[in-house]
Amino acid sequence: MEKGKKACTLLLGALRLMSMAATLSATIVTITSRERVIVFNFPVDAKYHYTPSLKFFAIANGIGSVYSLAVLFIPATKLRRLVVAFDVVITMLLTASASAALAVGHVARKGDSHAGWIPICGQVPKFCDHVLAALILGFCGVFIYMFLLLHAIHTFIKPILL
Amino acid sequence: MEKGKKACTLLLGALRLMSMAATLSATIVTITSRERVIVFNFPVDAKYHYTPSLKFFAIANGIGSVYSLAVLFIPATKLRRLVVAFDVVITMLLTASASAALAVGHVARKGDSHAGWIPICGQVPKFCDHVLAALILGFCGVFIYMFLLLHAIHTFIKPILL
Repeated sequence: MEKGKKACTLLLGALRLMSMAATLSATIVTITSRERVIVFNFPVDAKYHYTPSLKFFAIANGIGSVYSLAVLFIPATKLRRLVVAFDVVITMLLTASASAALAVGHVARKGDSHAGWIPICGQVPKFCDHVLAALILGFCGVFIYMFLLLHAIHTFIKPILL
Repeated sequence: MEKGKKACTLLLGALRLMSMAATLSATIVTITSRERVIVFNFPVDAKYHYTPSLKFFAIANGIGSVYSLAVLFIPATKLRRLVVAFDVVITMLLTASASAALAVGHVARKGDSHAGWIPICGQVPKFCDHVLAALILGFCGVFIYMFLLLHAIHTFIKPILL
């Protein structure tokens, strides 16, 4: 039983590390996304900070990675309630940022003919692929946090029935 | 003490009702958002289902309202753990949908000069105002769910320190 508990603690620590790796990579891949193309002899740059949703995505994942690292050094058993409450806030922040970036990324890839917004990924494919990779990493972070939250609820909240 | 517990249960029930009202109104306001304008003698329609993010927003809030209603009839004290776990999933769903709709709504209002996406709210102001109202209602739902989650964590998870 004691061994099982230790293995569980190790697994949770590994998940925190994975969430840190995912969110940190998402931030780095986003802020290094750039591409210069020549349109009608003029250089046109695609950079992440031109799009508010991508800026929000980079910042939120940056915060997520710092928090994931910090939790590893916090005596979680002593501040359990605070950690779970912060987990909720960070999960919502990561979800919001990944969702906003995905929504704008979808317009970039498919366009919106009704609004007259043309797809731009044909012109800046390298930039779009970079952002797509960042999005995949960001969603990995979201799902790891969702799992950590559901695990905490399963472990710490006792159903009255039992 | 018993009185305080009853008042708390009543308050939580009222919050569930408010979350149902907010998410249901968000769905109704979104799906009734439409505007027809004449551009160069041609009628142009703005409808919510032309935009995937708004479709997702309407569906997610519809699910949120049905869930909020259902929870009122579930013996929450008996299925406490399950309800809190579902609260996490619904909170994430509502957060993701509101955030995606806000991201696309921001492009609709401000445009994105770097991507060549023009703002469209000047042409369809009634449609944009409708969507803005739906977004405000959607975010009300998100914050009520966030509060419910944090309250559950505060109430049911005991810190080891105490």
